[in-house]
Amino acid sequence: MHRLIPAEIIAKKRDGAALDSGEWEAFLHGFLRGEVAEYQVAALLMAVWFRGMTPQETRAVTRILMESGELWEWPPDGPVGDKHSTGGVGDKVSLVLAPVAAACGVRVPMVSGRGLAHTGGTLDKLESIPGFRTELARDDFERLLSRVGFAMGGQTGAFAPLDRELYALRDVTGTVESIPLIVSSIMSKKLAEGLDALVLDVKWGDGAFIPERERAEELARAMIAVGEEFGVRTEALLTDMGEPLGRTVGHALEVRESILAMRGEPADPRFAAVTVALTARLLVATGIDPNEESAARRAEAAIAGGDALERFRDCVEAQGGDPRVADDPDRLPAAPVRRTLETLTAGGLAALPARAVGQALVALGGGRRTKDATIDPAVGFELPLNVGDEAPP
Amino acid sequence: MHRLIPAEIIAKKRDGAALDSGEWEAFLHGFLRGEVAEYQVAALLMAVWFRGMTPQETRAVTRILMESGELWEWPPDGPVGDKHSTGGVGDKVSLVLAPVAAACGVRVPMVSGRGLAHTGGTLDKLESIPGFRTELARDDFERLLSRVGFAMGGQTGAFAPLDRELYALRDVTGTVESIPLIVSSIMSKKLAEGLDALVLDVKWGDGAFIPERERAEELARAMIAVGEEFGVRTEALLTDMGEPLGRTVGHALEVRESILAMRGEPADPRFAAVTVALTARLLVATGIDPNEESAARRAEAAIAGGDALERFRDCVEAQGGDPRVADDPDRLPAAPVRRTLETLTAGGLAALPARAVGQALVALGGGRRTKDATIDPAVGFELPLNVGDEAPP
Repeated sequence: MHRLIPAEIIAKKRDGAALDSGEWEAFLHGFLRGEVAEYQVAALLMAVWFRGMTPQETRAVTRILMESGELWEWPPDGPVGDKHSTGGVGDKVSLVLAPVAAACGVRVPMVSGRGLAHTGGTLDKLESIPGFRTELARDDFERLLSRVGFAMGGQTGAFAPLDRELYALRDVTGTVESIPLIVSSIMSKKLAEGLDALVLDVKWGDGAFIPERERAEELARAMIAVGEEFGVRTEALLTDMGEPLGRTVGHALEVRESILAMRGEPADPRFAAVTVALTARLLVATGIDPNEESAARRAEAAIAGGDALERFRDCVEAQGGDPRVADDPDRLPAAPVRRTLETLTAGGLAALPARAVGQALVALGGGRRTKDATIDPAVGFELPLNVGDEAPP
Repeated sequence: MHRLIPAEIIAKKRDGAALDSGEWEAFLHGFLRGEVAEYQVAALLMAVWFRGMTPQETRAVTRILMESGELWEWPPDGPVGDKHSTGGVGDKVSLVLAPVAAACGVRVPMVSGRGLAHTGGTLDKLESIPGFRTELARDDFERLLSRVGFAMGGQTGAFAPLDRELYALRDVTGTVESIPLIVSSIMSKKLAEGLDALVLDVKWGDGAFIPERERAEELARAMIAVGEEFGVRTEALLTDMGEPLGRTVGHALEVRESILAMRGEPADPRFAAVTVALTARLLVATGIDPNEESAARRAEAAIAGGDALERFRDCVEAQGGDPRVADDPDRLPAAPVRRTLETLTAGGLAALPARAVGQALVALGGGRRTKDATIDPAVGFELPLNVGDEAPP
């Protein structure tokens, strides 16, 4: 066991040395036991912001966070997989990917988050469906996985509680934007889900939390390394978040767009392409399909055959929501006032900065300015053009 | 007024920008009011450790710390000066400098500290004199300055309380060794003393807190800049702490050596030279003497004429101690066991690492291992040789 002198551990990291896993354990378990103070954790987090962590450290911290809570296991009943996005504007891929993957034979116990800053959250989007419950316990997940093939819930209190405490400290001490801390936070929760495979959608560009493509690549590589070390087949796609994904930004509007996509009527080819690509990766990673091309065709077939929409309808019903939205999206909340932005002259759409669109949604009430604010699911934007499209006058 | 979002201020410093004085004020006053949490202060301190502070920032922080407590002023009755050392092993200069300067006409309200790590503290040394009280209030200082010309006390609770809180946090978060933080901590207390002039003894070498000479120079320059900005004539000597200063290390032994020096019987010429040099600087900086050479002769005359020892005797008596120690140092506590280290062969003394000597003193009970430990004033070392001296067999 390590003699725990917190200031010495902090100074070691401050001076650029790697901490061994025993030191990380002594420090973080000491924090859980109240022997290491919050101000000492904050100082260490800031030292990590400057000095980084080695792959060994990132792995050790991920394990400590993960093992602080429930670890899920599933009956040996076919592959279990999930997808995680680092956060985007208009990113509704999960709403389609989970039912499609389930229709193809992957069980998906998807634990999602809420909107952060200018980005939307899957849980918030789902809750725009009247009655939909996202507070699921492990038993709910197990029941839903066997009945529907997938479930979409929020983090329960028993899930990686140490990560939640660390994240709360990072949020108020300027230590969120650290790649190894982001990696250990995300992966500690995803690896606790008991997965065979994980597909990551790592965003870069204006609307992403990490706008620089090189750093997004670094983040992706670090998450893959940790996932593989824990025996979970992990793959990542880097996707451009320079403009919003899809034709809508806003909670109910995005559920509506997702339902249309599952009906085989995707409005935006880019959204459809990203969704199919990520789903195909997951099908290959879980061993459902040997190669990505046939996996993509399999995913498209699950949509075309109506299987995906049926799974979605079943999930909504099982999670307490109104299943009729799957066939009649007009049952979703709609904005009482609609304004159309008209162009004065013909021309092309030069830019549609994702971050500004996300911030505008927050300003309209479709996001949280404070932690406990409620979201208006009806507000949002319809975006008929992609960057580069010609706009009629 | 600055809108106070602590995490944004932390992130600004973390990213390398300077905080303006309004931001520092909002953050530190927010801390005093309980609106900024200790963990946020700790994160900012670690960011400062990495990014440093500009001279403007160091000045602003010094002022905020200083103005958090009492600011002393003295009757216009001749110059007021003080000396501060960054901490050494065997460094007993203050015990001689203060009475000598007082004998030469400088009032010296010396607020000192206790031993830290392997270094000794002036307060602890004085307390080896039977009965000597170091808990002085401002009124005690005023009375002593007019009667004796100098006083030596510890920090009262009313003195720069914000610095005390910050230092306590730095001590347990690995953020002590930051030059701008050291500068603002030291100077906030020294400038609160109401000085005309301040002389700094900045130590470098093995036994100093900052062993590298270049960094000690940087520290000296930064302290001078802050002092001058506040209208206090500030000078610094860089002195070598590669070996202990003087012939003794240990509380009662160092008081004894200081008394012998004030009797004109300094055992170590290096200790005598450093003491006279610092005192002469103070006499020039306070305008008592126009140049250092005549100031040095004036200091030597105050010793030779017995004035310094008389001032010391008066101070001991006024602060509750047994004044007879000034004439009979055998009244100081003495170690019951004495061991002599003998060399087996003739040769020169190649090295006497100050840090190891200081640590050995702590190990013998002549220092604190925990904050509230008591010190045995009787233990210590007599060091008959300087590095480079020939040792008889």
